[in-house]
Amino acid sequence: MSIMGNLVNMNLQGFLDELASESPAPGGGSVAALAGALGAALSSMVCHLTIGKEAYENVQSEIQTVLEESERLRQQLTYLIDKDTEAFNRVMAAVKLPKETDPQKEQRRQTLQKAYKNATSVPLQTAGLCDQVLDAALVVAEKGNKHSITDAAAAALLAQAGVDTALLNVRINLGALKDAAFVQNTAAEVDALQQKTREKTAAVLRLVETSL
Amino acid sequence: MSIMGNLVNMNLQGFLDELASESPAPGGGSVAALAGALGAALSSMVCHLTIGKEAYENVQSEIQTVLEESERLRQQLTYLIDKDTEAFNRVMAAVKLPKETDPQKEQRRQTLQKAYKNATSVPLQTAGLCDQVLDAALVVAEKGNKHSITDAAAAALLAQAGVDTALLNVRINLGALKDAAFVQNTAAEVDALQQKTREKTAAVLRLVETSL
Repeated sequence: MSIMGNLVNMNLQGFLDELASESPAPGGGSVAALAGALGAALSSMVCHLTIGKEAYENVQSEIQTVLEESERLRQQLTYLIDKDTEAFNRVMAAVKLPKETDPQKEQRRQTLQKAYKNATSVPLQTAGLCDQVLDAALVVAEKGNKHSITDAAAAALLAQAGVDTALLNVRINLGALKDAAFVQNTAAEVDALQQKTREKTAAVLRLVETSL
Repeated sequence: MSIMGNLVNMNLQGFLDELASESPAPGGGSVAALAGALGAALSSMVCHLTIGKEAYENVQSEIQTVLEESERLRQQLTYLIDKDTEAFNRVMAAVKLPKETDPQKEQRRQTLQKAYKNATSVPLQTAGLCDQVLDAALVVAEKGNKHSITDAAAAALLAQAGVDTALLNVRINLGALKDAAFVQNTAAEVDALQQKTREKTAAVLRLVETSL
């Protein structure tokens, strides 16, 4: 439905207008990926503000590694902004397939199941990448430039909002799937991601509290 | 420092690049306002997907009111994306004022205090508007289109990330202020906003859980 890179080429005002419109896509899934990308960008910024600073000479190589990681995560999450809207549009297209004859019904059922599986996998991937942004945020909050500690916290808060939003989308799409093994495995992944990300965000916020 | 509307006229990719760069602004404060604007936009979308639907005829006038409210909040939060970066740049400019003579020192001190007060007021305003986005999200989660319930939750999660990020910025800037009454009043507002927003977000998430 959408040309690759459609959304990420919009300006902020235009993206917000499109989001607010009566079209159901982009919606929460694309916003989750954007939230993660914002978190990754903030983590990169704190790395940049730490690299080359004498007071942080002992952590230069570690922060350089986190910067590369944050930038990789930012690129992947930016890609998922459009991917999530495409996944949603694929479901909508499958819903509209003809269902008059039995072969048509079967074809539609299969296409719809594949589309829902994809619309589950994309936000699950978003949540997994946001979890990795939290790992980066934790290092920069602990070892990065202290003047930017609230930006490290912002990175974690945005990544956590990305996780929570993405996982709600995973859970709602799981409800449409018939593949019991896939549903069970994915539900377990959702629970694990929810648990570990909350702990990481809490750890970042504790670090910030001690330095405020 | 920045031309009005600089950031909101950037495309998503360009904004993320600018955020990730070694320049400390834009930073968490502008991202907080963007998170709030994204939440407001999602609330507006759910309103649009509810208006004119027969199944929701009893709530049409209430949802219309929430739509107008969400759109007002979106506009104000979008404006604060650039305002926060301008407030940060004003502090940076004040830091660089000459401080060789006593009159220069006094002038610099006063300008810096004003700049920090402004850099405290802007994120406090962001947090207050995000709190109002949560009010909108609560209504749309309860009464809006059930097919969009995860988008209502996304609205709340983004608004909450906006509140939390903005309030950290308020708190860090309060540390630089000498006006004890202002500091005390603002700290009380921070606590009140933190408390009430968490309750509202929890209420939205409870509504979503029951319908997943």
